[in-house]
Amino acid sequence: MTTIGFIGLGVMGAPMAANLVDAGFDVIGYNRSPGKSRVLAEKGGRTTGSVAEAVAGADVVITMLPDSPDVEAVVLGDGGVLDNARPGTLLIDASTIRPQISRAVAAAAAERGVRALDAPVSGGEAGAIEGTLSIMVGGDAGDFTAAAEVFDAVGSTIVHVGPAGAGQTVKAANQLIVAGHLELLAEALVFLDAHGVDLSSAITVLGGGLAGSNVLARKAPGMLARHFEPGFRVDLHHKDLGIVVDSARAAGVAIPLGAHVADLLTSLRAQGAGSLDHSTLLLQVEQLSGKHTGLSTAERAPR
Amino acid sequence: MTTIGFIGLGVMGAPMAANLVDAGFDVIGYNRSPGKSRVLAEKGGRTTGSVAEAVAGADVVITMLPDSPDVEAVVLGDGGVLDNARPGTLLIDASTIRPQISRAVAAAAAERGVRALDAPVSGGEAGAIEGTLSIMVGGDAGDFTAAAEVFDAVGSTIVHVGPAGAGQTVKAANQLIVAGHLELLAEALVFLDAHGVDLSSAITVLGGGLAGSNVLARKAPGMLARHFEPGFRVDLHHKDLGIVVDSARAAGVAIPLGAHVADLLTSLRAQGAGSLDHSTLLLQVEQLSGKHTGLSTAERAPR
Amino acid sequence: MTTIGFIGLGVMGAPMAANLVDAGFDVIGYNRSPGKSRVLAEKGGRTTGSVAEAVAGADVVITMLPDSPDVEAVVLGDGGVLDNARPGTLLIDASTIRPQISRAVAAAAAERGVRALDAPVSGGEAGAIEGTLSIMVGGDAGDFTAAAEVFDAVGSTIVHVGPAGAGQTVKAANQLIVAGHLELLAEALVFLDAHGVDLSSAITVLGGGLAGSNVLARKAPGMLARHFEPGFRVDLHHKDLGIVVDSARAAGVAIPLGAHVADLLTSLRAQGAGSLDHSTLLLQVEQLSGKHTGLSTAERAPR
Amino acid sequence: MTTIGFIGLGVMGAPMAANLVDAGFDVIGYNRSPGKSRVLAEKGGRTTGSVAEAVAGADVVITMLPDSPDVEAVVLGDGGVLDNARPGTLLIDASTIRPQISRAVAAAAAERGVRALDAPVSGGEAGAIEGTLSIMVGGDAGDFTAAAEVFDAVGSTIVHVGPAGAGQTVKAANQLIVAGHLELLAEALVFLDAHGVDLSSAITVLGGGLAGSNVLARKAPGMLARHFEPGFRVDLHHKDLGIVVDSARAAGVAIPLGAHVADLLTSLRAQGAGSLDHSTLLLQVEQLSGKHTGLSTAERAPR
Repeated sequence: MTTIGFIGLGVMGAPMAANLVDAGFDVIGYNRSPGKSRVLAEKGGRTTGSVAEAVAGADVVITMLPDSPDVEAVVLGDGGVLDNARPGTLLIDASTIRPQISRAVAAAAAERGVRALDAPVSGGEAGAIEGTLSIMVGGDAGDFTAAAEVFDAVGSTIVHVGPAGAGQTVKAANQLIVAGHLELLAEALVFLDAHGVDLSSAITVLGGGLAGSNVLARKAPGMLARHFEPGFRVDLHHKDLGIVVDSARAAGVAIPLGAHVADLLTSLRAQGAGSLDHSTLLLQVEQLSGKHTGLSTAERAPR
Repeated sequence: MTTIGFIGLGVMGAPMAANLVDAGFDVIGYNRSPGKSRVLAEKGGRTTGSVAEAVAGADVVITMLPDSPDVEAVVLGDGGVLDNARPGTLLIDASTIRPQISRAVAAAAAERGVRALDAPVSGGEAGAIEGTLSIMVGGDAGDFTAAAEVFDAVGSTIVHVGPAGAGQTVKAANQLIVAGHLELLAEALVFLDAHGVDLSSAITVLGGGLAGSNVLARKAPGMLARHFEPGFRVDLHHKDLGIVVDSARAAGVAIPLGAHVADLLTSLRAQGAGSLDHSTLLLQVEQLSGKHTGLSTAERAPR
Repeated sequence: MTTIGFIGLGVMGAPMAANLVDAGFDVIGYNRSPGKSRVLAEKGGRTTGSVAEAVAGADVVITMLPDSPDVEAVVLGDGGVLDNARPGTLLIDASTIRPQISRAVAAAAAERGVRALDAPVSGGEAGAIEGTLSIMVGGDAGDFTAAAEVFDAVGSTIVHVGPAGAGQTVKAANQLIVAGHLELLAEALVFLDAHGVDLSSAITVLGGGLAGSNVLARKAPGMLARHFEPGFRVDLHHKDLGIVVDSARAAGVAIPLGAHVADLLTSLRAQGAGSLDHSTLLLQVEQLSGKHTGLSTAERAPR
Repeated sequence: MTTIGFIGLGVMGAPMAANLVDAGFDVIGYNRSPGKSRVLAEKGGRTTGSVAEAVAGADVVITMLPDSPDVEAVVLGDGGVLDNARPGTLLIDASTIRPQISRAVAAAAAERGVRALDAPVSGGEAGAIEGTLSIMVGGDAGDFTAAAEVFDAVGSTIVHVGPAGAGQTVKAANQLIVAGHLELLAEALVFLDAHGVDLSSAITVLGGGLAGSNVLARKAPGMLARHFEPGFRVDLHHKDLGIVVDSARAAGVAIPLGAHVADLLTSLRAQGAGSLDHSTLLLQVEQLSGKHTGLSTAERAPR
C-alpha cells in the first residue's frame, strides 16, 4: 500500500486527504493547527504532530498550503519535507503558488533525489469534496504517470502541461483569463442595463457569438439573480492575481489588462467582498457607475 | 414585390443588396461613389445617383454606412432619407453606430411617420456574402416582425434585443467583450510562452474550464499559426471601441477594462496593424514584452 | 470703439463680458436663455435676442459655450456666426472644445474672410470675475497680436501656442496632466496613510524632490483638510477628459494613463461628485481601498 | 571615533562609504564580490571578507543592498548582521525595499537590542558621490537624531518621516508619483506633437500653471533633446514600482494608475531600455503611437 504524507489539512486539503483514504491509500496527515487533523482521523487516516513524521515513511508527499512562503518554509526549510524525505519520494505540491517557487522546489528536490510535481487544482471546496478537481500538472512525464492513481482519487480532469512550474503557470493563466472575463462581463452588463436593454435577452445573444464564454454561461445567471455566495472567493482570486502579477513582472511579460484586473480585485476585496464570489466584480462596476452606495448595501438592493 | 432602397454599397452593403435581389426583392441601390453600384446592377438590381431616388418609392430603406456622422447626414440631413421617405416606410439601419444616434434617428423618423430599426450586424464580409450575418435588432417588436423576410435574406441569427438603440448597445457590448477576450488571451499566451509552456496543450486545458471561450476556441489556433489576415480588421474594431467608450461616458458607466482595451486598439492601429485581424493584439503584447522589434517585422518572425 | 459680440453669458461668459465693458469695449451680448443677459445689461453692455444681431455690427465676436456641438451649431450652423459676420471680423472662441472642431471652425471662417482664434481659458469662475484667466491661444500670430487688448481685459497669462487648434490642444494636454497628477497624489496619500505615515510630513518631503508639483503644492492641503468645494468641478474635468480621449483616438495617439484617468473621472462623476472639486479623486481612491462606504458619506467621515 | 560596518559596496554603497571615511568615521566594509572593496581600501577604509567581521566591532552598521531578499538574508539570515551585532548597535538600512521587510527587520533587531532605521535614498550615483543624497528615514526619533552625523556625511536632505517602515513607504510613494508624472508628460508630449504644436512653447505654458511639476521642469528638456542616458535607470524604477505594487496589494490599497504605470515600466524594460533613463517612457508612447519602429531605433530617429 502506498503511504501518503499529507501536509495541509485545510478547506481543500482535508477533503482531498479523505478521498485518498477512501481510495485505499495509507494517509498520514499533518496540519499546523492540530484540530484540523481530526477530520482525517475520523475518516480512517493517521495523523501526526510533525512534518518529519508525516514525511519519513511516505512514498508520496502531498502539500496543500495557502501561499508561496508556506511552501518554501514547509518544503525547503529546516526540518521540512526535503530534510526528511527519503530519496525516491514523490512530492506533489497541490498549492497554487508562484511558478518560480515551484521550479526552485523541483530543483532543490532533485538535489536530494526527490521527485517533484507542481499540481495546482481548481474546482473549489466542492470539487475537493467530490473528488472532481481539475489538476494542471508540471514536472517529469514519468513522475506524472506514476502519480496517476493519486490524482484520480482527488480529481477528474488531470493534465500534464509541461515541466516543473508549468502547472502553476497554466493555473495562473487560467486565473488571469477568468478574472478578466468576469470584469468584462460585469462592465457589459452595467453598460447594457444603463441603456435599458433586457439583460437575459442580451446574454442569450452574446453567448451565441464570438463573445460567448464559459464565464458568461456559468456565471451570468447568478449575477443577474444577485447570488454572490461562493463559488470562488474574492480573497483567493485576489491572491492568485498577485501570483500572476509577480510572475509576469519577473518574466518581463507585459500584462496590461492583467495588472488592471489585479488592482480591481484588490479594491473589491478591500471594500469587504473578500469572502463573496468573484462575480461581485459586478457590484464594483455598479458602484463605480453610481448604481448604489457601498458594496455592502448593494447586495440587497433590488434592480 | 417589396421595394428596398439600399444606401451604402460597400464591402458589407454590396453583398447584402445582392442577397436581397436573389431573395426576390426589388432593390434600388445608391452609393456615394457610383462605381460600387455596378455590382448591384450586374446582379439585377437597380441603381440610382441620388438618395432621394433610392428612397422615394421604397417600402423599406436599408442604410449600411461607416460611422455615426454618415448615418446622421444621410438619414437626418437635408435631402436625406427622412426628407424623402413616405410615411409608413420602414428604415433599417444596419450600420454600427452610437446607440444615442440610433435613438435620435428613431425619434426623428417617428416624427415623419417613418418606422426605424437599428440592426447592426456581425459576421464580416464572409457573412454578408453568404447571407449568414448575425443581426441584433432594436426597435418596435411589430416592425421587427414585419422585417423578417428582409432579415432572413441577409442573415441567419436575427434577434430582437429591445427598443430603439438596443441593437447598437448589444453590438457595442459584444465588441467590448470580444476585444477584451482577445487581449486577455494574448497576455496569457505570451505569459505561458515566456515560462516555456507548450501553448497547444495549455490552450486545450484552458478551453476545458472556466477560462474557455469562443474567442479561445476560434482565434487561438490562428494566433499560434501566426495567421493574421482578417477575420475582423483592427480598423473596424478600433472604431467600434470608440462607440463603446463614447456611449459609456455618455451613460455614466465605468468601463475600466473597456477603456483600457480601447486604448490598446488605438495603439495597435497606430502601429500599422489597421488592416490586419484583431488577433494581432498578440503581436502588440509580444512587442511590449520584448519578443521582437516592430509589429511589421513580428509577423514574419518565427516563434 | 471696438464692438464685441459676446455669445454665451454663462458662469464664465457673463463676468468676462462684464470685464470687457469695464475695459471700454462696446459689448453686445446674446445668450440662449435670455435671463442671463440681464447681468451684462446692468453692467452697461447691450443685449440682443439673436446671434445675428450680436454679430452683425461686431468687430470681434467672442463665443463662450459649453461643448463642441454648441460651437458647431452657433458658429457653423444656419443663421450662426459665420452666416452673419462681416469679412474681417475676428472670431475668438473661448470655449474648451475638441481641437479638430477649432480647426474646422478656422477653415470655415477663412472661407468667409473671417479670422478665427481658439482661446480656451483656465482659472475658473474666480479667474473670469477677476480678469485673471490664463488663455492658451491658437491661430494666426497677427490675429493674436490684434486681439491683445481684448485678452488683457479678461486674462493675465495669455500665450500664443500655435496655429488653429493649438490652444485647444494645449488646454487638453493641461487637463490630462492635472487629472493624472491629482489621481497619483490621491493614490500616494491613501498608500501613505495605510502605512501609518504622517501625511503632512510626507507631503513636505515629496514636494521637495522630483515628485513635487503644483498640484501637490496647491491641492494637497485642501485634500488633507477634507475641503472639496470647487476649485474646478468634476463635471468640467470629466468633460475635458472626453475631449482628450476623443482627440487622442482621432490622432492615433496612445494615452494609456490618460484613458485610464478619464474613466476614473467618469466613475467619480457617476457616483455623485460632479459638482465637487476634482480633488475628490481622493475620496474615490479611499472608497476603493475600503476606507469608507459611499462617496457621499465620505466627505463627512473623520480620518 | 565611531566605527561603521558598511555592507554593500556597489554603485551607491562604495561612494557613500568613501564619504564616511572622508568625514572621519572608521569604516570597515564588506562586499559579496571582494573586488569592489578595493575602492574603499584606497580611500583609507578597512575591508573584510565577512559580514561578521564588518559588524562585530561596529557602533553603526549600514546596509546598501539591491533588494528585499538581499536585506532579509544579510540582516536576518544565519551569520548575518543581527547574529553578530552587539546590543546597542545602530543599524541603518539604506536599501530601497518593501516597507513590510523594514518593519520586520526593525522588530527582529529590537529583539536583539539592536536599533534600526530604514533610510532609503534618492539622488542616484551622482548624489552618492557628492554626498548630496536625499534620505527619507523611518524609525525611532532618538535613533534618527543619534545618526545625524552619519547622515550628514552622505546626504544633504535628511528627513525623519515616521516609524519603522515609513522611510520605505515615502520612497515608494515618491517613485509612484515620479513614474506617473513621466508617463503623463510623455503622453502629453506625443499628443501635442501629433497636433503640430511646438513643444517648447507648450512646455513653458504648461509649466506655469497647475500642470507644472519638477518632472516637467527637470526632465522635459532632456526628453525634447532626445537625451536618454541616466539619470535614473529604468531597471531601478521598475524594481521600485514592484515594491509599490506589492506593498499596495498587501495593505489593501487600490492604486489604479500605479498598477498601470508599473506594467508600462515592465514593458519598457522588456523592450531593452533597462539601462536608459526612465524618461524613455516617452519612446514607448511614441512607439505605441506609431511614431517609429522599435525602441532601439527610436533614439536615433530625428523628430
